[in-house]
Amino acid sequence: MTELKEFFKNDRYAALSGIELLEVEPGKATTRMSIRDEHLNAGNVVQGGAIFTLADLAFAAAVNAYGNLAFSIETSIRYFQSAKSGILYAEARVLYLHRKLATCEVTVTNQDKELIALFTATAYRKDVVNQ
Amino acid sequence: MTELKEFFKNDRYAALSGIELLEVEPGKATTRMSIRDEHLNAGNVVQGGAIFTLADLAFAAAVNAYGNLAFSIETSIRYFQSAKSGILYAEARVLYLHRKLATCEVTVTNQDKELIALFTATAYRKDVVNQ
Amino acid sequence: MTELKEFFKNDRYAALSGIELLEVEPGKATTRMSIRDEHLNAGNVVQGGAIFTLADLAFAAAVNAYGNLAFSIETSIRYFQSAKSGILYAEARVLYLHRKLATCEVTVTNQDKELIALFTATAYRKDVVNQ
Amino acid sequence: MTELKEFFKNDRYAALSGIELLEVEPGKATTRMSIRDEHLNAGNVVQGGAIFTLADLAFAAAVNAYGNLAFSIETSIRYFQSAKSGILYAEARVLYLHRKLATCEVTVTNQDKELIALFTATAYRKDVVNQ
Repeated sequence: MTELKEFFKNDRYAALSGIELLEVEPGKATTRMSIRDEHLNAGNVVQGGAIFTLADLAFAAAVNAYGNLAFSIETSIRYFQSAKSGILYAEARVLYLHRKLATCEVTVTNQDKELIALFTATAYRKDVVNQ
Repeated sequence: MTELKEFFKNDRYAALSGIELLEVEPGKATTRMSIRDEHLNAGNVVQGGAIFTLADLAFAAAVNAYGNLAFSIETSIRYFQSAKSGILYAEARVLYLHRKLATCEVTVTNQDKELIALFTATAYRKDVVNQ
Repeated sequence: MTELKEFFKNDRYAALSGIELLEVEPGKATTRMSIRDEHLNAGNVVQGGAIFTLADLAFAAAVNAYGNLAFSIETSIRYFQSAKSGILYAEARVLYLHRKLATCEVTVTNQDKELIALFTATAYRKDVVNQ
Repeated sequence: MTELKEFFKNDRYAALSGIELLEVEPGKATTRMSIRDEHLNAGNVVQGGAIFTLADLAFAAAVNAYGNLAFSIETSIRYFQSAKSGILYAEARVLYLHRKLATCEVTVTNQDKELIALFTATAYRKDVVNQ
């Protein structure tokens, strides 16, 4: 999966956001973000968009690791606690895999393993021959 | 609403992402993002997280403009087309306002007014006295 | 569209629920439900599932009216007010139509045109040749 | 929890739909529905609204079992497989409990323990004194 990690290094928005892909295999991926001042919103907690992007990279990695090009159709995210400092992790796990669709759940936790957000998403998978 | 615009300049993740708050009034707001290389994902289209963050700032502005501190509980986003270059706009409109909850719909369009994504979100509103 | 109306008369759960398809054309449909005691939950307001089913039939009709068989992938619903009596209407409108996917928004209102719920859904469309 | 089971027997839409509450405790509940002809849609599979209602009763039971009156704000549901016959079960589990909000995940499975749908929902909890 070294190749996939290399491929996702080309996600420039994740790079801008300081998000790192730690692990990836078909149907699973983990990302990490050390909270910095630039992740905060006007209320001084981590912006929802930064949490979303952290989870989105884990989702993208997990669903693309099967080999087909997959892209996001829809996502819902629910926030449980705000985060101000420390490290956030996102762990993605594919719940159901169709030929054309994949649904993935991503939990975002902090360094104390407290649940920060839940991200659930569906990807559309292109046929391998169409890529 | 100049005050609110100033307040949201302190959203450091929106600033990092090159997102600008154009207009805000109670229940409505518009944001803009000129697509740059740093917004792209590994597939060379704008990362879902960048589109989300653009919409999220419009949502936050629209629901906070009533005067209560409001924070996001949940969001769903649906993507219709990918974007590679040009300018993206997000227009937020509150659909329903309760004392404690507000639901907002945000459309993301490109410079040709084509629909890129639909973002729908609910905020929890703190009582004014609790702030 | 008389044929489609006939087809959806075979939706036995909608029939059980007292839901009627009023109008349907490609990308649009309207359904109606007169609130009866059997729609209420233990808290004596219309059960969320009944509101969902009302909206779901409008969605199914609007996305199937293009001619391809379409089935639901995912839905989000947000509730604004409870309903206890009177008539509920659901109006579906397709927001974006791809070859393989369709996204639809459905508003649920009461007889006074007050917004009761917002239902947003994505359908997967089978190719005509595959039917 | 016999009292709660009795309370939810008064959910008339669940009763109309042939849905039974099997077990409930704070944060957890299970419901069951034996598929009958009246649950089917025009395509002869279980209507999305019936699956939703099955999950919704489990959610309502799980979040109300803490003692506060709780009502649904929003739900997202994702469908994985259609069901035509047999028995469906919904198992609800609260993922996060705030003073005013509760988020719950419900899995819908068939009699072979295959995943049919995933339902995720947020409830607003009234203060005990306000009831």
